[in-house]
Amino acid sequence: MAQTPHPRPDSASQGLDSTQPPVPVAPSRSHWQPLPLTDIEFHGGFWGHRQSLNHDVTLPHIEEWMERSGWAKNFDHAATGELPAKRQGREFSDSEIYKLLEGMAWEIARTGDQDLDRRFKELTARVAKAQDTDGYINTNFGRPGQAPRYSDFEWGHELYCYGHLIQAGVARARTHGVDRLVEVAIAAADHICAEFGSETDTRLGGHPEIETALVELYRVTGNAAYLRQAQLFVARRGQGHLGEIDFGPAYFQDDIPVREASVLRGHAVRALYLGSGAVDVAVETEDGNLLAAVQTQMINTLARRTYITGGMGAHHEGESFGQDYELPADRAYAESCAGVASVQLNHRLLLSTGDVRHGDAIERTLYNIIATAVGADGRSFFYTNTLHHREEGDAPAAEEASPRAASSSRAPWYQVSCCPTNLTRTLASLGAYMATKNDQGLQIHQYFSGTLTTELTDGSTVSLQVSTNYPMDSRIEIQVLEAPEQEWTLDLRVPAWATSATLVHTGDEPVAVEPGYVRVNGSLRPGSRLLLDIPVHPRWTRADPRIDAVRGQVAVEQGPLVMAMESVDLPSSIPGADISNVRVDTSEPPVQDGTGTQVATLIHENHDLAWPYVSTEMGATGSLDSGTAETERHHVPLVPYHEWANRGPSTMRVWIPEA
Amino acid sequence: MAQTPHPRPDSASQGLDSTQPPVPVAPSRSHWQPLPLTDIEFHGGFWGHRQSLNHDVTLPHIEEWMERSGWAKNFDHAATGELPAKRQGREFSDSEIYKLLEGMAWEIARTGDQDLDRRFKELTARVAKAQDTDGYINTNFGRPGQAPRYSDFEWGHELYCYGHLIQAGVARARTHGVDRLVEVAIAAADHICAEFGSETDTRLGGHPEIETALVELYRVTGNAAYLRQAQLFVARRGQGHLGEIDFGPAYFQDDIPVREASVLRGHAVRALYLGSGAVDVAVETEDGNLLAAVQTQMINTLARRTYITGGMGAHHEGESFGQDYELPADRAYAESCAGVASVQLNHRLLLSTGDVRHGDAIERTLYNIIATAVGADGRSFFYTNTLHHREEGDAPAAEEASPRAASSSRAPWYQVSCCPTNLTRTLASLGAYMATKNDQGLQIHQYFSGTLTTELTDGSTVSLQVSTNYPMDSRIEIQVLEAPEQEWTLDLRVPAWATSATLVHTGDEPVAVEPGYVRVNGSLRPGSRLLLDIPVHPRWTRADPRIDAVRGQVAVEQGPLVMAMESVDLPSSIPGADISNVRVDTSEPPVQDGTGTQVATLIHENHDLAWPYVSTEMGATGSLDSGTAETERHHVPLVPYHEWANRGPSTMRVWIPEA
Repeated sequence: MAQTPHPRPDSASQGLDSTQPPVPVAPSRSHWQPLPLTDIEFHGGFWGHRQSLNHDVTLPHIEEWMERSGWAKNFDHAATGELPAKRQGREFSDSEIYKLLEGMAWEIARTGDQDLDRRFKELTARVAKAQDTDGYINTNFGRPGQAPRYSDFEWGHELYCYGHLIQAGVARARTHGVDRLVEVAIAAADHICAEFGSETDTRLGGHPEIETALVELYRVTGNAAYLRQAQLFVARRGQGHLGEIDFGPAYFQDDIPVREASVLRGHAVRALYLGSGAVDVAVETEDGNLLAAVQTQMINTLARRTYITGGMGAHHEGESFGQDYELPADRAYAESCAGVASVQLNHRLLLSTGDVRHGDAIERTLYNIIATAVGADGRSFFYTNTLHHREEGDAPAAEEASPRAASSSRAPWYQVSCCPTNLTRTLASLGAYMATKNDQGLQIHQYFSGTLTTELTDGSTVSLQVSTNYPMDSRIEIQVLEAPEQEWTLDLRVPAWATSATLVHTGDEPVAVEPGYVRVNGSLRPGSRLLLDIPVHPRWTRADPRIDAVRGQVAVEQGPLVMAMESVDLPSSIPGADISNVRVDTSEPPVQDGTGTQVATLIHENHDLAWPYVSTEMGATGSLDSGTAETERHHVPLVPYHEWANRGPSTMRVWIPEA
Repeated sequence: MAQTPHPRPDSASQGLDSTQPPVPVAPSRSHWQPLPLTDIEFHGGFWGHRQSLNHDVTLPHIEEWMERSGWAKNFDHAATGELPAKRQGREFSDSEIYKLLEGMAWEIARTGDQDLDRRFKELTARVAKAQDTDGYINTNFGRPGQAPRYSDFEWGHELYCYGHLIQAGVARARTHGVDRLVEVAIAAADHICAEFGSETDTRLGGHPEIETALVELYRVTGNAAYLRQAQLFVARRGQGHLGEIDFGPAYFQDDIPVREASVLRGHAVRALYLGSGAVDVAVETEDGNLLAAVQTQMINTLARRTYITGGMGAHHEGESFGQDYELPADRAYAESCAGVASVQLNHRLLLSTGDVRHGDAIERTLYNIIATAVGADGRSFFYTNTLHHREEGDAPAAEEASPRAASSSRAPWYQVSCCPTNLTRTLASLGAYMATKNDQGLQIHQYFSGTLTTELTDGSTVSLQVSTNYPMDSRIEIQVLEAPEQEWTLDLRVPAWATSATLVHTGDEPVAVEPGYVRVNGSLRPGSRLLLDIPVHPRWTRADPRIDAVRGQVAVEQGPLVMAMESVDLPSSIPGADISNVRVDTSEPPVQDGTGTQVATLIHENHDLAWPYVSTEMGATGSLDSGTAETERHHVPLVPYHEWANRGPSTMRVWIPEA
């Protein structure tokens, strides 16, 4: 890994490092450095539209539900001594307020929205009043009638809540400077170091999150105690220090030390947050072995335990990763928060290693999990992201909180509502995931429509105009508006699936470019134009046969988009036609025209068997439904997976059986 | 349904009905009547061996663990006032003692084992001392420091524990007459009726079981209050009277009234126990609609929600049924207790309706769940019965209780150890599931090696000698030893998969017989011999294509046995050969010879992909692993599924991909 030192704060100082950029992750050294999220401005396009929706609809929606649910009021009740009597929500509900504050902080930086800043300060003031004089803050523990502080490390989520508080404080510090929330976060972090800093202490939290937060606060403040504490928490895990739980120690990654594991396992969000914290610790302590261990875990997880959508976590039970290749489409948990966490970890690994696989994984997850998890209305969310929805079910009541994973469509809120706040903070900070820089120049990892204006590490300025309708269109135009005098490089990511991409440099002939990073150097001046063409025509995709659950089935991908077939698009001419009666004819390629993407299918009527297993001698041939007289041939439209379930109750499948 | 009245006790009497046969289920009226389990004697064979093992090894093993786990001592501590300080085990551990007592009662009746009778009485005496004067008995509630009686209907399991206590009392009453356990059970039942008998009471237990137990105690005692109470409990369910839980109300079938549901759903054991109680109530109250509703639920469950093994319950989360056709092989929960419960419910439906599908379902479940769940050593048990075991894992420590479903092989005990006691009571009472009688004669539903001597309803005696090595051999010989003077009938079940069965009557020519019941009447005299031939050669079986998880895969069945491929049987010549690298060549039929059953396979080496989804243009063809140079052709032995995991850690699959 290239050691590119980032300006480092004086580690003795408790003040803020004013050079910290407005980014979620600011490693002191890295292969590539993150770009301030304010250096990227979306102009419409896939992400510009979603970021506006996030600002206009999602953030206010979440603020409203924080009041309705009583989770914000918990802090008021803490101040007025009315806890636990008036407490609402689960043990981790404080963290939702903190994630909301983090999202608001990024959004204020991005937009300069003064009213949002006012709301941020109001909410911060309510939170701050609940903090004890020693820095402890949690509305669920420590008062008469509540469980004592630090009495439940397995399920109590105290350290997890601190983690999100500190991440919110870091976001505010990097976008605004010291204010009340930053003070609260620092006081909490100091309390944690005092409480848990002993070398002989073996306590750690059941839900990782504090680790990455403490490293970021170290990066902001230069206080090495925070880094040391994060290092301690990472090292304590995997020793069996947490208590026995029904799910077993792998659930919270307490089965194997982080540096000894070869693949992610257990609760997916916990595993991914822990990975992020471990990368952060590894980077700051120059612990190459730890970094390599986490990268190996992610690479193996991508190879064996990830859905085609980028979704992670195959089990509803324990919200956990399955075994290798155990990826049932119809029981995909693929929690939205695991998508957020996967982007976070892959982003850290991309920064540290420059390995394009992490850029590919981020793209896949953004388009197929993050974009899917938020409904077209901006006020409904998936908690889980299944790849096969068997029963239509009812639309959830618009004004009710759904049980966490039971909803058959996007719900406005959940009883465990971690996903909306996680999605809002990700969308608000999305600019930071698009590009990076290093001593040589700039790297674009994700494509967008808008401008990128940033200072290279030598102080010179680059400004680019990016124009594209990607991923609906293949062409990405990059116009250089401003560029340094000296030679610099621009790296552009070509996704692994793009086997026929081309690049045109300012009127030159197109040249074929391979998946990976294509480098343009030495010749980019103001007025230069690049046209990167990443073909996004629909293509058939099949799975490793060890993924038994989708054997004999095919998916359609289109650029980075996974496509889906939804029952509302089936012809009404066939009685009982359902997504389970469709076979796709792969001898005819999928067609994309002005109206969308279609595949040729054979659709037949439903017919039930008294016993669904038929022996050969009872008349079964190769396929129990082949050659039935009622089969009809139809072209059926597909929709991008992220668009499904926006047209009322439906059944859906990503993987479709082949005829 | 034919109304064949069974001699009915005087409903005003609190005494025992001395005409009650030693059977688990004794309906007052039914299509067919159960046979006393003592009327059947196994002579070796598949079940005789297992019943001996159950007596010699499993029962003492369970008795020992009841002491080690402290679950039996809980009753002693109740008597000495040392609860809750010394209480061990989960909230439902009392029920395990009761299930053990039930198993002992049947086994004492079957064998006359006097030492077992002594142990039964000792354990009974310990239990009895824990009963309060008002009949309440539970070691987990009601004492200072414990939750109050009846303070947790969702999870407390008080009514569930009573149910098993009463079933044990019923078993003792029917095999021995009144003794201390019967008195304890009756006192408990009287307490329940006093506590919960009001028409306006809406309370009911989270785990059904009390319903069927109360009906059986009504059948034993004639006390109609018990029947009425069972009827109330069945009617109260599905009204939303139970509190909200994370799994939702379907978990304990509180989503829909029993008579309105169309398929079993939620926690499988709960659903099946409830079905049994509802059938019992329906039969005794002549409620044809309720009976029809439960039968429809079972028929639909067999058609859409049952594994090829007869296993029920596809979800680990909530131990519950999945949606229709959601039957992933590698996440099959198929709890052993659900197998026990399925046999119970199908037996009741068989008695009530005479529908052969229930006889078929019982056979499938006995050979592939009950026989699988107990290891060859008689002292290890599966909690769940997966159809695809992906990772070898470690053998569980012989002397440790495993978490409930995490074990990769059979474990000696579980922290939630409901399965061993359920299996032992089923095996001890297995004789009762083999045959039935009615006014016309006798019906044999399950084949065994041994004798059947019973009194027909007119008082005449039939005695048969059954000789067979079924299901390893196709021939079942039945010799009539004693028969009534008047005409009588013998019905023999021919399983649905037996499309070429034949019957020979005393030297006649073989006649082809169809699946269903073949009736022999008018001509069976002492010395008559029947030879039923049910071919058990191996056959290919494929699944309804809506069971997506096993598409493109084939299973081998052999008679009622589902076969499995286990990694320990793979050739060692191929590097990394594993159960996931095998394809079966169905163009060559499976072969059965003296050494066992084999199939032709193509086996290839493992090869990993960086990303396990490959688009056509990236070079993927129909199958990602076809045509690899390393493929070798081998014949691989299969084992009956019930025999798997008896040779150390292995991977296993029932459904094998087709080449």
